[in-house]
Amino acid sequence: MTGSSNRAETLNLGAGPCMLPTTVLETAARGLLDYNETGMGITELSHRGKDFVALNTKTQNSLRTLLDVPDRFEILFMQGGGSQQFSCVVMNLVNHFRLKHQTSPDETVTGAYAITGGWSLKAAGESARLGCPTHTLIDTRKFSSDGKSFTSIPSTSEWNFDIPKNDTRKGPAFVYYCDNETVHGVEFGQQGFPSLPEPYNSATLVADMSSNILSRRISPSLWNRLGIVYAGAQKNMGPSGLTVVMVRKDLLVDLDEAVPFGGFRVPAVLSYKIQADNQSLYNTPPMFPIYVCNLVFEDLLARGGLEMIERVNSQKAIAVYQIIDQSQGFYVSPVKPDARSRMNIVFICGGGAEVNNRFIAEAEKQGIKQIKGHRTLGGIRTSLYNAITLEQVDVLCKFMLAFMKSGNSR
Amino acid sequence: MTGSSNRAETLNLGAGPCMLPTTVLETAARGLLDYNETGMGITELSHRGKDFVALNTKTQNSLRTLLDVPDRFEILFMQGGGSQQFSCVVMNLVNHFRLKHQTSPDETVTGAYAITGGWSLKAAGESARLGCPTHTLIDTRKFSSDGKSFTSIPSTSEWNFDIPKNDTRKGPAFVYYCDNETVHGVEFGQQGFPSLPEPYNSATLVADMSSNILSRRISPSLWNRLGIVYAGAQKNMGPSGLTVVMVRKDLLVDLDEAVPFGGFRVPAVLSYKIQADNQSLYNTPPMFPIYVCNLVFEDLLARGGLEMIERVNSQKAIAVYQIIDQSQGFYVSPVKPDARSRMNIVFICGGGAEVNNRFIAEAEKQGIKQIKGHRTLGGIRTSLYNAITLEQVDVLCKFMLAFMKSGNSR
Repeated sequence: MTGSSNRAETLNLGAGPCMLPTTVLETAARGLLDYNETGMGITELSHRGKDFVALNTKTQNSLRTLLDVPDRFEILFMQGGGSQQFSCVVMNLVNHFRLKHQTSPDETVTGAYAITGGWSLKAAGESARLGCPTHTLIDTRKFSSDGKSFTSIPSTSEWNFDIPKNDTRKGPAFVYYCDNETVHGVEFGQQGFPSLPEPYNSATLVADMSSNILSRRISPSLWNRLGIVYAGAQKNMGPSGLTVVMVRKDLLVDLDEAVPFGGFRVPAVLSYKIQADNQSLYNTPPMFPIYVCNLVFEDLLARGGLEMIERVNSQKAIAVYQIIDQSQGFYVSPVKPDARSRMNIVFICGGGAEVNNRFIAEAEKQGIKQIKGHRTLGGIRTSLYNAITLEQVDVLCKFMLAFMKSGNSR
Repeated sequence: MTGSSNRAETLNLGAGPCMLPTTVLETAARGLLDYNETGMGITELSHRGKDFVALNTKTQNSLRTLLDVPDRFEILFMQGGGSQQFSCVVMNLVNHFRLKHQTSPDETVTGAYAITGGWSLKAAGESARLGCPTHTLIDTRKFSSDGKSFTSIPSTSEWNFDIPKNDTRKGPAFVYYCDNETVHGVEFGQQGFPSLPEPYNSATLVADMSSNILSRRISPSLWNRLGIVYAGAQKNMGPSGLTVVMVRKDLLVDLDEAVPFGGFRVPAVLSYKIQADNQSLYNTPPMFPIYVCNLVFEDLLARGGLEMIERVNSQKAIAVYQIIDQSQGFYVSPVKPDARSRMNIVFICGGGAEVNNRFIAEAEKQGIKQIKGHRTLGGIRTSLYNAITLEQVDVLCKFMLAFMKSGNSR
């Protein structure tokens, strides 16, 4: 315990929920008591009243502008986080596949997963638990030195494409990947997910972008391949409690007839079609997170949008990785350079657990907080989300250099 | 449009999302930027860090104290609102019933619904849509003068108990009711849901208390009969985005084997057992609503708890209904006296639509806001949730009397 501290002296590098821009939170704090001179706070308004409906629409439109979301995608605001999407994706897309291909009820429909870290592994686990068998396109742990670490994304020549290629009905209903693995610090490159052979290429491509959404642009060619992109708000967008889901409109069909006898249909709030048909106001939405997201989006647009933030984020990550790579083993990144996350920089002190702990304790004393590695991994994780400025990264870098210097001179 | 106004001049009588105590929102606004002198805002903390975990536990404990929740109930914090619970209740309880009674996959399991307003009607609709046929214990519309209004709760001698009484396997998996119907202003009395004959009495009793939770005590005898109580936060507790679910622990069993071939299992975030096993931290919770709920609960405890607020709420409702009943038809409540909601007072001006509209417009000018009746009903609805004080109700009453006087002298 270091006693009390204040916001100006604190550098919050948490992996999420994480730092949000101070100016945004200041506006939100005022809006809690009085939104837009209505005399009522943002969470005290009817979600069907004109003020909130306008805000809801504006927030979706700002996101569309920022990310260049094509018109053929619907933007949905849902709840339940990434974990709920693990289930939503399976339930919606398996039923969609059943309808489209008129499968018989006893025919098994599968989903294909690229497992590159803890979150895609968990997503595949939920698919299997729900009752949708999964096909593992790749489990990158097999390519690590100890056989159990997520540290690289091998090229598709190493992937497993063993489903009969000329039977689309036996192909997977969807192909799933996590664009940035928050726990393991592994990220797909700017080009996104690689091209796959058939039938994988024509399956619906699903991307979990929870921890790198809005950190860089999504290219038109990647949009061309995507069917669903989703992201929990609580990294680059706003407070927890909101999930943004972008769904290609052709996937929004009535699925109620696709369910085999004895099974449940997709719960209303988990149905992409029902949410889309109701402009995400099927029921009371998480109003406060939507409000804060709107402020974050406006702020980002005013500052130059994703072209600007992509450049800044790249500079931030390069600065920290450079210190690691030039530290001659004092700091070690387990992740191969071409798979390193720009958002979550995972590393250890080469000197061992004692040095790691000292690093974390010393950082805490200097106000650098929430940098302990994930409980399953240990080590250190500094997360450089959009709200972290170049100046703040400079503070981190200076601390890392000073700590190394004092450590080497011990 | 009346131009800008401020909080002090505004009386927000919205049906939800609705007014929250100003002092609570002031504290929450500070906590957004710096929670507990951590130098980080409440939504910027790790949900697995000690500060938030302690807050989460404290919030659950305060609720347990306020409502005298028996130890045999687990308190869960979920997302998705009442509409998600419409599905959760069915999926969890049908599977629980299947396991307990070892039903064959082609045996139909039903739920029984008391339909006393728009929300219980919607809940029953979701059950049927999901694939669980419903048994209608009563549809109170049949007892209204026009055959289509929810205006009373007839005694159980009018209810439909036509399932074979000696076969529990054919009995319903659960009995569902909505304690307070927000749209129609219909509420069960202090004793709660009536006693039913077998097999209904031994079915799991589910109460939607979204719009009257914490407005009065739940008696030990009602707790004895209840299996599940749930409530969206956005009326008497906090901002939208959080749902409180209290589940009897014997209902928390592993349901994965109960699902017929071809059906989906219960999605992880919708599974009561998975949420309970993880202290509602299976994934990132809606942190801000939990924080505000904690402040509301503490405030309520400090002011005398439910005994106090129950007395105040009763006085508030009596004051307004008295004006209606003594207005000689100037104001008309469609709801029979013994089924009238203390939270949502639904009425019309006997003079017709023009007078109604004038009432709403005049009220707005005086800062009395969000009192338009539900879009499906028209008329007027003044909601007197916990945050509305006796003094504020006095303002409403004075306005109603003055409007009546001016109307009668026209």
